[in-house]
Amino acid sequence: MRFASDNTSGAAPEVMAALVRANDGYDRSYGADAIMERVTVLVRETFEAPEAVVHLVATGTAANALAIATHCPPWGAVFCHSHAHVAEDECNAPEFYSGAKLVLVPGDHGKMTPETLGAALARTGESGVHGVQRGMLTLTNVTEAGTVHTPAEIAALTALAKAHKLPCHLDGARFANALVATGATPAEMTWKAGVDVLSLGGTKNGCLGVEAVVLFDPAKAWELELRRKRGGHLFSKNRFLSAQMEAYLSDNLWLRLAAQANAMGQRLAKGLAAKPGVAQAHPVQANMQFPNWPEGSHARLEAAGAAYYRFPAAPGREAARLVTSWSTTEADVDAFLAAF
Amino acid sequence: MRFASDNTSGAAPEVMAALVRANDGYDRSYGADAIMERVTVLVRETFEAPEAVVHLVATGTAANALAIATHCPPWGAVFCHSHAHVAEDECNAPEFYSGAKLVLVPGDHGKMTPETLGAALARTGESGVHGVQRGMLTLTNVTEAGTVHTPAEIAALTALAKAHKLPCHLDGARFANALVATGATPAEMTWKAGVDVLSLGGTKNGCLGVEAVVLFDPAKAWELELRRKRGGHLFSKNRFLSAQMEAYLSDNLWLRLAAQANAMGQRLAKGLAAKPGVAQAHPVQANMQFPNWPEGSHARLEAAGAAYYRFPAAPGREAARLVTSWSTTEADVDAFLAAF
Amino acid sequence: MRFASDNTSGAAPEVMAALVRANDGYDRSYGADAIMERVTVLVRETFEAPEAVVHLVATGTAANALAIATHCPPWGAVFCHSHAHVAEDECNAPEFYSGAKLVLVPGDHGKMTPETLGAALARTGESGVHGVQRGMLTLTNVTEAGTVHTPAEIAALTALAKAHKLPCHLDGARFANALVATGATPAEMTWKAGVDVLSLGGTKNGCLGVEAVVLFDPAKAWELELRRKRGGHLFSKNRFLSAQMEAYLSDNLWLRLAAQANAMGQRLAKGLAAKPGVAQAHPVQANMQFPNWPEGSHARLEAAGAAYYRFPAAPGREAARLVTSWSTTEADVDAFLAAF
Amino acid sequence: MRFASDNTSGAAPEVMAALVRANDGYDRSYGADAIMERVTVLVRETFEAPEAVVHLVATGTAANALAIATHCPPWGAVFCHSHAHVAEDECNAPEFYSGAKLVLVPGDHGKMTPETLGAALARTGESGVHGVQRGMLTLTNVTEAGTVHTPAEIAALTALAKAHKLPCHLDGARFANALVATGATPAEMTWKAGVDVLSLGGTKNGCLGVEAVVLFDPAKAWELELRRKRGGHLFSKNRFLSAQMEAYLSDNLWLRLAAQANAMGQRLAKGLAAKPGVAQAHPVQANMQFPNWPEGSHARLEAAGAAYYRFPAAPGREAARLVTSWSTTEADVDAFLAAF
Repeated sequence: MRFASDNTSGAAPEVMAALVRANDGYDRSYGADAIMERVTVLVRETFEAPEAVVHLVATGTAANALAIATHCPPWGAVFCHSHAHVAEDECNAPEFYSGAKLVLVPGDHGKMTPETLGAALARTGESGVHGVQRGMLTLTNVTEAGTVHTPAEIAALTALAKAHKLPCHLDGARFANALVATGATPAEMTWKAGVDVLSLGGTKNGCLGVEAVVLFDPAKAWELELRRKRGGHLFSKNRFLSAQMEAYLSDNLWLRLAAQANAMGQRLAKGLAAKPGVAQAHPVQANMQFPNWPEGSHARLEAAGAAYYRFPAAPGREAARLVTSWSTTEADVDAFLAAF
Repeated sequence: MRFASDNTSGAAPEVMAALVRANDGYDRSYGADAIMERVTVLVRETFEAPEAVVHLVATGTAANALAIATHCPPWGAVFCHSHAHVAEDECNAPEFYSGAKLVLVPGDHGKMTPETLGAALARTGESGVHGVQRGMLTLTNVTEAGTVHTPAEIAALTALAKAHKLPCHLDGARFANALVATGATPAEMTWKAGVDVLSLGGTKNGCLGVEAVVLFDPAKAWELELRRKRGGHLFSKNRFLSAQMEAYLSDNLWLRLAAQANAMGQRLAKGLAAKPGVAQAHPVQANMQFPNWPEGSHARLEAAGAAYYRFPAAPGREAARLVTSWSTTEADVDAFLAAF
Repeated sequence: MRFASDNTSGAAPEVMAALVRANDGYDRSYGADAIMERVTVLVRETFEAPEAVVHLVATGTAANALAIATHCPPWGAVFCHSHAHVAEDECNAPEFYSGAKLVLVPGDHGKMTPETLGAALARTGESGVHGVQRGMLTLTNVTEAGTVHTPAEIAALTALAKAHKLPCHLDGARFANALVATGATPAEMTWKAGVDVLSLGGTKNGCLGVEAVVLFDPAKAWELELRRKRGGHLFSKNRFLSAQMEAYLSDNLWLRLAAQANAMGQRLAKGLAAKPGVAQAHPVQANMQFPNWPEGSHARLEAAGAAYYRFPAAPGREAARLVTSWSTTEADVDAFLAAF
Repeated sequence: MRFASDNTSGAAPEVMAALVRANDGYDRSYGADAIMERVTVLVRETFEAPEAVVHLVATGTAANALAIATHCPPWGAVFCHSHAHVAEDECNAPEFYSGAKLVLVPGDHGKMTPETLGAALARTGESGVHGVQRGMLTLTNVTEAGTVHTPAEIAALTALAKAHKLPCHLDGARFANALVATGATPAEMTWKAGVDVLSLGGTKNGCLGVEAVVLFDPAKAWELELRRKRGGHLFSKNRFLSAQMEAYLSDNLWLRLAAQANAMGQRLAKGLAAKPGVAQAHPVQANMQFPNWPEGSHARLEAAGAAYYRFPAAPGREAARLVTSWSTTEADVDAFLAAF
């Protein structure tokens, strides 16, 4: 009954086994390891992107901040959803790395719309040198509201950005969950939908700590490497990042782990929907949900051993964020529902 | 015969075992894990510093950059050795995090002297608002030349800095090797010698990737936490950092690993000293040495399978950097000497 | 009929005369000039603040950015109105100088309210290390909507900030106009109302280019000096800034100039109010107004030689920003009204 | 007898008169003024550079920092002389604006040599991603030692930089003095000698406060404008900068003023050379000299009313920096020599 976050789970056995294997003997450092070469091949195949360049870091904030800094000048505006992780949960890391300004674009359920993005684009950069210039677009999939963008939705938004020649970034901390939820291929969800650079998350979905910055256009690859080093994010023993990513992307592990997390999310949502007085703030489409319920439920659930984040709620109500992960079991979900 | 760097070695079995153990079940994220609490206790005991605060990151560059940024204002001068890692091998990370300027202090064998530091302190900050102000001191132990500072040498340098009320940082990427080489205790080498903040390295000495920033004065602890997050260096699954550090500092593992690395360095140096025409650029005091030898040796050694970095040398000579690690064996050393 | 901005006016004769006088002979550079000493005395007297420290720069953006950087850490939130000059018209200068994040606080007519500011304060910094921390408050008087804060309104907002121990800045690019509009004294509008640091504008109100950063708490004075130099804003021939400011604050010149600008604004507003189909977007309280009128008026006015900024408007309507200055005459206003 | 700095002088009458003229009536703000258009034409003619773009700022530190930031990435090395103004007298402004690292290149009399620059170039950027990359070259003319680079000397240095495709900047705070001293044309001293961007100083040579950043390659013009605004260096009433620069470059005023400064420097040097026991630290080639003389001279000179900076000297000696300016008279020089 541990639903606080997918990052309270450990690593999947396959990932841990790969790490142990990678520890054998000597290997070249700073990304020149043999495993890293295989990761690049694997990413290119997985994304049907033979030119893609991959750089690994250990945290999602690092991946996002580096991707943004590499694509937006210091006087640029980064268009992001009002409640994006880059805006609310990274303590200014994107601004620190890029010097740019985040321009918040509203939208229900964690998603900006062509209308809201269009309006933000229209009112930015129209005052010449005085205001920030249009810089880039960053989207998130799965969103912070637990909803999922389809490739078509992403394409509709990137098209608006492309009309201004802006590069597009996708924060894919839960990218595998989004793939599973939509059935889209990695290529459909990214470069085919106008995404130029992806933060491909591993940490929340069964790794110890690894994220890939995937550049579909290799022109920025060297700059990203320099920024990674300058940010202190280049691992000397890079093989311990690449081994995770190799295992993660092999044999569909990433999709199997995400499928479990999503299925448990659906099971939990279905169970909650059957309880009187429970509502969801957002559609439940992947592995994260935001239910609210009658007062008194928190106490009952926590007495039963459930762990999750409480959220502010209307009078007489209580609200929560529940996240399932690759390691959530049916027994966990059912125990939670029973305790409820 | 892999002497390219101590970071081409893997992780010690004890560290890897701890990592596997740490993977069991759920734990709180972002540093609130149970193991991290034990790491703090362990560091405080190890350093006889009951107030010390510990924050973990995955790279030495991150540890140094965060430690420096937390102790030096953007208009400050960071006094460091001319060939310090922070000056030559971190792609401006200290400047990026702090905004400060590195002032290079010369000295033989990787060590500034009271005279050279005194001169640098005297000529800095004397032009009012026009030049950088005196900011902080950073030393390195083991130095980049493979030599070791004694606690007394460190104290003599920090005393000069303290006379100007400057905080003092020690880059201890190879801190355990320095302890073993000198026989000093952790406390003697740090706060008793005037060090306010330490980058305590684990990566090069048998970990996968973990460094501790140890603040002997807890006043800066919250700022360091914020800078770590803003730099993208806060791990969500922090337990995978803390598990490494716990194993590393337990049962004297760190000292045992460093003792092996240093002993193999001495064995190698002794063997090379017996060869005709071999000289060392610096005294060999820990696990890193810079021999030079007659032309033709590179080809012979590499044909035999030896791996190391070549350095520029005088005409007719060749030079190298050889680094031993916790995993270097007597057989490795003897094979190298035989090939020579 | 030049209503584009108060910065299209030149300098008042008294200011230009002072500049010419200041040019006589040699004087010490970098702020050590004799005139600067007198400016400090004058500011202290004018603001009834015997401890205040004054530093001069040439632009309002520099004054704001330096004031903010000196009072907000890089991980802090700067609470400002959604349409504040610092947010919309300074091309990220506040972020560049401070590293901080601007948090936009809404409110009608250019003014945040205790409710909107309270809400922004409440939802910021509640996620520990993950989000930006509460940093500081910045207000603007005259606002970008041409409205004026009373001292009581300012005090109500700074009190909310002070409850979180946040410093408060006032962007007073049109400070004199606000004083004239409210009848408040300089002290009442600033430190008596909780303002810690003021950008005191001279440029828009009859100077060539000078703004004073007034620190009511001198503790930050040296930091501000260092930031000014590091930003390239320290004038070697500072006397040419101090001479402007001395003339500006002497003999009530600043208030006389602002009184003229405000009076012309009122005359213009009154005249427009008498025209059929003219409305104002905001109350006209100082020297800047945002009228809208029937389609076709732009063409008529510009044909008659009127200069001003056009703004977006509802269908069938046209909108404008009209700014009067110290040099606007009754004849200018009346000609505009006649052309209308 | 005011020899402290050329910035203790006021503005030349022609410049002040132009400022007063420019104050008449309204003009467009933020660089769109009519005078600025004429300045651009004038600079292009003066430098025989029909594509050149000119942006004005008020301080030399701003001009240098903006020029550097526009031409060097954050991970780049700026090669400059060990005692360059950008290295010693700008409180980290170049690093603040650019994020880059200054690499100090030694050389006698304020000048790097092809050998010292070649060595610095050779040892930079050779460690892949770990160290800073070669970024740009910045030279100074007149140097901080009061010596002058000939166009051929500049060309020899820029050629080394160009071999690495590095852009070249010239800090011309005393550019006119260098032209007069060498007889070179503006074009010969800049783009014909490989200079891509020039900080063209006006302040020290008879203006109130104006410096031009001259971009011989217009490709970076918009970026420089954005950086200028973001740095708070865009004047709203730009006409008060452009009026100075127009007067300065018109009718050879800048060269006439510099000729007077240089001639007075030579007169002073010649007079001092005739005194027993006086030596010069550097050749006296323009308007700045660094004599040393027997102990006791300081007291005698200052009693007579002479003002200048004292410098450290050998035992039994005293040292000074003496700067002559456009406003130094023969009587000033002769009085100083008499007092000596």
